[in-house]
Amino acid sequence: MNDKVIKLYKKRNLVFIATIMKDGSLQLSPVWADYDFGHIFVNTAEGRIKHKNVLGDPRVAISVVDNNNPLDMTTIRGKADDIIPDYEYEHADKLTKKYIGKDKYPIRQPGEKKIILKILPEMVFVLTELKINTE
Amino acid sequence: MNDKVIKLYKKRNLVFIATIMKDGSLQLSPVWADYDFGHIFVNTAEGRIKHKNVLGDPRVAISVVDNNNPLDMTTIRGKADDIIPDYEYEHADKLTKKYIGKDKYPIRQPGEKKIILKILPEMVFVLTELKINTE
Repeated sequence: MNDKVIKLYKKRNLVFIATIMKDGSLQLSPVWADYDFGHIFVNTAEGRIKHKNVLGDPRVAISVVDNNNPLDMTTIRGKADDIIPDYEYEHADKLTKKYIGKDKYPIRQPGEKKIILKILPEMVFVLTELKINTE
Repeated sequence: MNDKVIKLYKKRNLVFIATIMKDGSLQLSPVWADYDFGHIFVNTAEGRIKHKNVLGDPRVAISVVDNNNPLDMTTIRGKADDIIPDYEYEHADKLTKKYIGKDKYPIRQPGEKKIILKILPEMVFVLTELKINTE
């Protein structure tokens, strides 16, 4: 994977994931995610719309933009090729550390079952060629 | 429209729009946009993928998140119900002012024809009920 893409996922940049609804329309939401071993790992919970959607159609699109430079961004199109339980909040806690510097995921909901959508990128776009002229 | 939504669009928060590809898969990209008169106005250019996509299927999803608070966000699902020429860069210049405080759109491309996707929100979600406990 492109170094630029890896860097964008290493930083605490919010990640946007779009999934496909049953009727073919779109669902889009900001999530916490990280990148490792060629996959993007998106944290969500069982029964959320994006979970139901990838069970119906695994195709997704994901964008991440640098907080400090809106022209430093990447979009991928890919597929949820696995769904991994995160019932012990290990991944959620790891992302909590990354995004807000705390050890424990701070918004546990009663009965919530955390899962990880493992996304295989199939097409990767990186926006680097444009520079804003701020003179 | 919810005041919170209007506020999120008034600020210089980047906006994410997802559109539907011919094969039913997704395209997702960050854009500059604003909100007025019950519509969201997304600036793009003729021939871009998202332009082609809304001509094929007008359904879109749009998210915007507050730069300073990732839990302050809104997602809408809606439809591109009009495409408005912006050949004179009026809207692009207005958004340039909003996003980077300059008078003129700084990344004009030769031959580029700017257009505005006018999006009618059909379902609006606002995330406000969760507060991160940062104690």
